[in-house]
Amino acid sequence: MDSRAGRRRRPRFVSVRSLPVLLILLAAAYVFGQDAAPDAAGPPLTGEVAQTAADDHANGHHDPVTPLLVGLSLILAAAKIGGAILVRFRQPAVLGELLVGVIMGNLVLLGPTVFEFLRPASADHPETIASAVSTTVDMLARIGVILLLFEVGLESNLGDMRRVGLSAFLVAILGVLAPFGLGWGVGKWLLPEESWHVHLFLGATLCATSVGITARVLKDLGKTDAKESQIILGAAVIDDVLGLIVLAVVQAIILNGSASLAEVAIITGKAFAFLVGAVVLGEFLFPRMYTIAARLKVHGMLVVTGLVVCFLLSWIAGLVGLAPIVGAFAAGLILDERHYAPLRQSDEGSLEDWVIPITTLLVPIFFVMMGFQVDLRSFANPSVLLLAAAITIAAVIGKQVCSLGVVERGVDRLSVGFGMIPRGEVGLIFAAIGRGLHTDGHAVISESVYTAIVVMVMVTTLVTPPLLGWSMTRRSEEPSLPA
Amino acid sequence: MDSRAGRRRRPRFVSVRSLPVLLILLAAAYVFGQDAAPDAAGPPLTGEVAQTAADDHANGHHDPVTPLLVGLSLILAAAKIGGAILVRFRQPAVLGELLVGVIMGNLVLLGPTVFEFLRPASADHPETIASAVSTTVDMLARIGVILLLFEVGLESNLGDMRRVGLSAFLVAILGVLAPFGLGWGVGKWLLPEESWHVHLFLGATLCATSVGITARVLKDLGKTDAKESQIILGAAVIDDVLGLIVLAVVQAIILNGSASLAEVAIITGKAFAFLVGAVVLGEFLFPRMYTIAARLKVHGMLVVTGLVVCFLLSWIAGLVGLAPIVGAFAAGLILDERHYAPLRQSDEGSLEDWVIPITTLLVPIFFVMMGFQVDLRSFANPSVLLLAAAITIAAVIGKQVCSLGVVERGVDRLSVGFGMIPRGEVGLIFAAIGRGLHTDGHAVISESVYTAIVVMVMVTTLVTPPLLGWSMTRRSEEPSLPA
Repeated sequence: MDSRAGRRRRPRFVSVRSLPVLLILLAAAYVFGQDAAPDAAGPPLTGEVAQTAADDHANGHHDPVTPLLVGLSLILAAAKIGGAILVRFRQPAVLGELLVGVIMGNLVLLGPTVFEFLRPASADHPETIASAVSTTVDMLARIGVILLLFEVGLESNLGDMRRVGLSAFLVAILGVLAPFGLGWGVGKWLLPEESWHVHLFLGATLCATSVGITARVLKDLGKTDAKESQIILGAAVIDDVLGLIVLAVVQAIILNGSASLAEVAIITGKAFAFLVGAVVLGEFLFPRMYTIAARLKVHGMLVVTGLVVCFLLSWIAGLVGLAPIVGAFAAGLILDERHYAPLRQSDEGSLEDWVIPITTLLVPIFFVMMGFQVDLRSFANPSVLLLAAAITIAAVIGKQVCSLGVVERGVDRLSVGFGMIPRGEVGLIFAAIGRGLHTDGHAVISESVYTAIVVMVMVTTLVTPPLLGWSMTRRSEEPSLPA
Repeated sequence: MDSRAGRRRRPRFVSVRSLPVLLILLAAAYVFGQDAAPDAAGPPLTGEVAQTAADDHANGHHDPVTPLLVGLSLILAAAKIGGAILVRFRQPAVLGELLVGVIMGNLVLLGPTVFEFLRPASADHPETIASAVSTTVDMLARIGVILLLFEVGLESNLGDMRRVGLSAFLVAILGVLAPFGLGWGVGKWLLPEESWHVHLFLGATLCATSVGITARVLKDLGKTDAKESQIILGAAVIDDVLGLIVLAVVQAIILNGSASLAEVAIITGKAFAFLVGAVVLGEFLFPRMYTIAARLKVHGMLVVTGLVVCFLLSWIAGLVGLAPIVGAFAAGLILDERHYAPLRQSDEGSLEDWVIPITTLLVPIFFVMMGFQVDLRSFANPSVLLLAAAITIAAVIGKQVCSLGVVERGVDRLSVGFGMIPRGEVGLIFAAIGRGLHTDGHAVISESVYTAIVVMVMVTTLVTPPLLGWSMTRRSEEPSLPA
């Protein structure tokens, strides 16, 4: 898509001008790679600060945080440079963050291991040892996406969400049914020798929507309050509940041969209780909480209470089986300016003003590290590429169908469909569960099917920013990108 | 000191009004302690996200970040409640954060283990396993104090620092010589059977100043631009260089019987080269860097470039053997509004406006966790209490002497002396090195001497906020606290 934009109007390539910054960055990476990387990769997770210092006679101080500081500097600088380059190509900045992440994470394939100290440990890379640095970067990334959804929730409004509620619900339902059917069909077609359990699970894997990347693109475009955005976000929340139900049912069928209605009802009930409970909490508890918080004469109560609400709702969402980002979005949605009015007297600015610097720091970490974990070797496996291509197409088409659920007029259905494409880590979690489930003596999701799902997740993540960027802006702005 | 304030004018005890918040907090802690704690303590550091999810059939999603969110919520809520209570007692908020940390960290002595998932692994507690949560909290705390010093540096001014340079230098010199002599004397008096190596090292341990707590108290009081503050901060930077030299010399004497002048010159040279280099960087490189950064049309360049400078200087400070916070302070000092003027057009607000929300979130984590690691059992060891009391008194008196180095008129010498009291983690690092050094076949710093140093570090940390809070405000404001 870059070449397409480039053909029309060659943008000045920003990297020549940012060469000094890049050089400093690379020099730092080199020095660090030579000097500190063994320290970073080695002992930190024992966390023995004092002991490490004692072992290190040459240096007076030896703070285990320093390799983390280098890592964060590299990630942030790379994110901004990547974002700036892609913005020149009229793409959302987040695509640049993902792509520099892909470069950083796959540089090791060409030899240099400078960025490897950042690689989070995962089941897919059992050779990777969790260090204090990689663990913290991973956690900061996860907090980043939680705060991103919190911020998007703050910018959204419960009333607006309710108004598009029917569309969101229909979009979510279609967005689960269509990919499920297509996924099942692809399984039957390309994996005919496998049992129907496998086809069932493949269908389930395609249901989930991971709204982080979409939320970020909408923010990059300044469109979080557009009707399309409200429908996508609402549908993604409902989708998460539906995905939970689908997963429970499919698991029960594979494990027990049938799903217990009572069990499914409990899971569904917990999820809905959470969403309803959050709204009730917002109406009744928050105003009181803020009145109390306003009495505490300390600095920063506004942002701290906001973050505590966001963190606790994310946690509770996780407890009932929903994605933490759904809890964070709900927290943002129900926290309203009229609630924290008592606090405005002591801390200046709105809650959003306080959250933005924190998300500015943490959100790029999430997207760079998301790109970092894209393993380009997955694309080099010809035996799975056909399957990968088929389920990717099923995943994309399946979510386009859901735009038929939009009942409002004047809403761009294409944008709604594009916004629902990314599967993100939710698809991976489903697939990982499938790897742990056994049918006929082997895993429901085999190694090759898992790799195909990983490719699908990567592709759906990477195509969403340019597609959504184009569809959301094609009406309002100058026709910078051809259809 | 609380009772003293209480006797004069009984403040309304805030905790009755904040009871609902406290109850929710405790309920959350309880639920979490019952429910999620095993998860939190157990597998996270393998970092196997997908695998963990696969193991956990009952829950649809299982994000390893959720226990961290609970931990951060508990820490932040406790920090604000503790801070608010102490502010009612006319104490700096940071003392409240330290004290709630002490309570949280020592609750386990009474039985409840709800907060133990937060405990960072350390050489002193080999039974503590580093989990993803405790590691991340520890790292966030360390970033917190780095950003605190960065923020204080931003509020300070290189010119003002230069004007008090002579005083800062003399204060630093006296602040090393006096505690060194007193520490040596205490060693000779109370540990007569030990070799002079031990007395030497005990003296060295008392030299270091840890300026984090002082910086925070000055911020709480809104006095970072006072002359006293500038002298303390300047002296602390010089102190860090001097401490590095003292440590190197003492180590060389113990290891080799004598110190090589060349080696000491190299260490000193590196430290000064860093400080001079930072200033040169500030004058020549930063304006160019910001001009380039302003060309990158992405959001958040101001705060990201600021943080990258802060992080990289902290890292380089660590490389030359200085404390990372010295690098962070230097970064804040040399980053000047006129440098980033080109960026002001794209991102609104000053760099401080952008950094404050981040420090508001992270700095309390540092101080709560600093209190958390105060082990009250250390005070229960009668055999070391005499030694602990003696070196604590030596540490406090030693730093009062340094206020004689102030050459300016109208500067409150008592405040300068009080501001230099805390030894913080720098003293602990020295002591830990001493535990690793051997003389006459046993460690230079024995277990009991180490415990005494730990007590000294705790006491100097806890007495500084009330002492400095009183001395800095006694002239300007109403006489709320008697002398």
